[in-house]
Amino acid sequence: MKILGSTLTPIAFADPPLLNVMGVHEPYALRSVLQVQCEDGIVGLGESYGDAPFLEQVARALPALIGLDAFDLPAIRAAVSRALGRAVVTDAHGLIGGFSADKTLASVYSMIEVAALDAQGKALHTPVVELLGGRARDRVDFSAYLFYKYAAHADGRTDPWGAALDADGLVEQARRMIDVYGFGSIKVKGGVFAPEVECEGIEALAAAFPGRPLRLDPNAGWTPATSINVASRLEGVLEYLEDPTPGQDGMAQVAAHAPMPLATNMCVVSFADIPQAVRQNSVQVILSDHHFWGGLRDTLALGTLTETFGLGLSMHSNSHLGISLAAMVHVAAATRQLTYACDTHWPWKDTDIVEPGVLEFRNGSVAVPTAPGLGVSLDLDALARAHETYQSCGQTRRDDVTYMRRFVPDFTPNTARW
Amino acid sequence: MKILGSTLTPIAFADPPLLNVMGVHEPYALRSVLQVQCEDGIVGLGESYGDAPFLEQVARALPALIGLDAFDLPAIRAAVSRALGRAVVTDAHGLIGGFSADKTLASVYSMIEVAALDAQGKALHTPVVELLGGRARDRVDFSAYLFYKYAAHADGRTDPWGAALDADGLVEQARRMIDVYGFGSIKVKGGVFAPEVECEGIEALAAAFPGRPLRLDPNAGWTPATSINVASRLEGVLEYLEDPTPGQDGMAQVAAHAPMPLATNMCVVSFADIPQAVRQNSVQVILSDHHFWGGLRDTLALGTLTETFGLGLSMHSNSHLGISLAAMVHVAAATRQLTYACDTHWPWKDTDIVEPGVLEFRNGSVAVPTAPGLGVSLDLDALARAHETYQSCGQTRRDDVTYMRRFVPDFTPNTARW
Ligand SMILES: [Mg+2]
Ligand SMILES: [Mg+2]
Repeated sequence: MKILGSTLTPIAFADPPLLNVMGVHEPYALRSVLQVQCEDGIVGLGESYGDAPFLEQVARALPALIGLDAFDLPAIRAAVSRALGRAVVTDAHGLIGGFSADKTLASVYSMIEVAALDAQGKALHTPVVELLGGRARDRVDFSAYLFYKYAAHADGRTDPWGAALDADGLVEQARRMIDVYGFGSIKVKGGVFAPEVECEGIEALAAAFPGRPLRLDPNAGWTPATSINVASRLEGVLEYLEDPTPGQDGMAQVAAHAPMPLATNMCVVSFADIPQAVRQNSVQVILSDHHFWGGLRDTLALGTLTETFGLGLSMHSNSHLGISLAAMVHVAAATRQLTYACDTHWPWKDTDIVEPGVLEFRNGSVAVPTAPGLGVSLDLDALARAHETYQSCGQTRRDDVTYMRRFVPDFTPNTARW
Repeated sequence: MKILGSTLTPIAFADPPLLNVMGVHEPYALRSVLQVQCEDGIVGLGESYGDAPFLEQVARALPALIGLDAFDLPAIRAAVSRALGRAVVTDAHGLIGGFSADKTLASVYSMIEVAALDAQGKALHTPVVELLGGRARDRVDFSAYLFYKYAAHADGRTDPWGAALDADGLVEQARRMIDVYGFGSIKVKGGVFAPEVECEGIEALAAAFPGRPLRLDPNAGWTPATSINVASRLEGVLEYLEDPTPGQDGMAQVAAHAPMPLATNMCVVSFADIPQAVRQNSVQVILSDHHFWGGLRDTLALGTLTETFGLGLSMHSNSHLGISLAAMVHVAAATRQLTYACDTHWPWKDTDIVEPGVLEFRNGSVAVPTAPGLGVSLDLDALARAHETYQSCGQTRRDDVTYMRRFVPDFTPNTARW
């Protein structure tokens, strides 16, 4: 099935003012949608980042796909690798670890691999999960992803969630989110307030939702010493503590004392990082993310690796729309070694570029789509609108730091600042 | 695609008197062929061991498949696991490492998984390699697999290869095998004669075939001290030294001094063995074998793992026929991390149970079959003949030791005997 061409569409959608260690989410989240046109009218879909440096690299790779067989993933990967050379995409937010040529290749290839797998599934009339080895589960569990947040953006634009700037705000946000989506576990994005304040937030959630697994992710906002104190205080409360401190050396220091597993999507973000993780026991849970782990097949293989070394496996999320959620659900369903509910930013968006109805949350989980490929259909009108939003919003790369200074003029991002 | 039933057929085929550390190959090699009948008349094929303890466990698992979806590999794996419980198959020859319930599950499931993948490919009209992620290579390289051997079996039956009991015999055997198959690299099964004699054999091959990578595999026949001496003597001659000594501790001792990588299919034979291997640097090359690594998908994942830890990847072989070779070729073709030519016993057999023409060696390599599934067709007459051979041959499990005593009455197998 020859690849005839491709279309890369940058898009933007409204994003609430969600706080994190680097600042606050800007008014729009940027993503991009890839359509890979194949023979017989088959179109494969992919979704990934929308910041300009990433788009530039994808655009460099796409011409190399023409004429390749959409089933020949090794040839596609080789062509992408040749097109990119040793290019390195850096992102301003720095929330998914370091930058490297290998990680750039993994992320650009991933978007294309997902589109190729969608096309394969459509050609074979089979869902992507079957191409990955079948369903280890029929539904994929996700956790509620809570954020401290402002009530309104700098321009006054509000969202239905209101402010959440203390423990009560978190509990209220969790209650609403669980009411609508049924999530069974809860994650809090920390690194915003002093660690003791965030511990109070977690403790309030534990009291309000007894028995529900909790996670806290300050995006490496703390020193190792602070991390150890927090870990001790939250013993028996957190199912895992995510990226408390930067780097594997620091994480290993914390892990030696923490009573709960440490999870990461910042210091172990590629296969090359794993030997050190095993040597140092720096992390006990890896948060996979097909967008930067090299696609669905490599993400699946990561499960074999984590199981082999007795590591847990969960899944990271950035702001995303339905193509990404579908891909996440297919690969999570095929991964028998997945040990935790996955993250998703899904509740924070109010729009999508896929036709509604396929990806519905029930009891915090999403059923694996059963239609061929990823099982989602592009809504071309919605895509056009999201592209217009991209063009008019003025954002071209994520920069939570600069935007944060509209709220806190002297804001300085600093991991391990507490 | 529902599984309707299955047929397990033990078979036997003539095997030359090939020598190894445990003795000598008996007159017949035992294998088994699995046919999994699915809806729409689709039949998936698998091939694996033929010794009675293994057949017994497969027979226990097969009824659990009925009614399952041939695409639902996780459900098939779970059903096999439930049927087997903690059963452990032991083999008398001991040439592929230790025994465990997990390894038994991996081997029984593997045979069934291969048949399910063959059925899936047939249903989707696509070769198995595509279901595994596509061709990282169009042809798979194999190495010449040389054996010291007797000219005739105990009953006087000869074979076209003649005797090979010294360096000249090995060189002559290599020349014939390379003439016919075109192999680019050469492996010698050692552990038969004193190490210095086998070193002379390797050195004679190096002189006769300059530039061709060489391997020596004494099946853990040596002590660590002997292994280190051999490794030193064969520096610059061997591309790898395979299982010189038993166990990971011994291998790690040797690896600390050996100038070439150590390979294994005896001390790292499951994912559970890998953490120790990484900790101790006991082996530098893993010889995968889908028959006991849990099927094609797990074997594929092993590639991600070896690459992550900087290990080489090659492929082990037992005596086998065409269904196994097809499965080996599909998974080897899909494994981009494969770093060496694979092993095969192919030249040592004079019959098959698949229709001829698909699996042809050219320049030591086999093209990936392009027909749906594994791409091979069962020759039902040949299967019936091979089953009759099984019934009449009187062998029910491999026992090279006892048979060796027909030639060397006081023979005692003993790994690390030199
Ligand atoms: Mg995180
Ligand atoms: Mg071996």
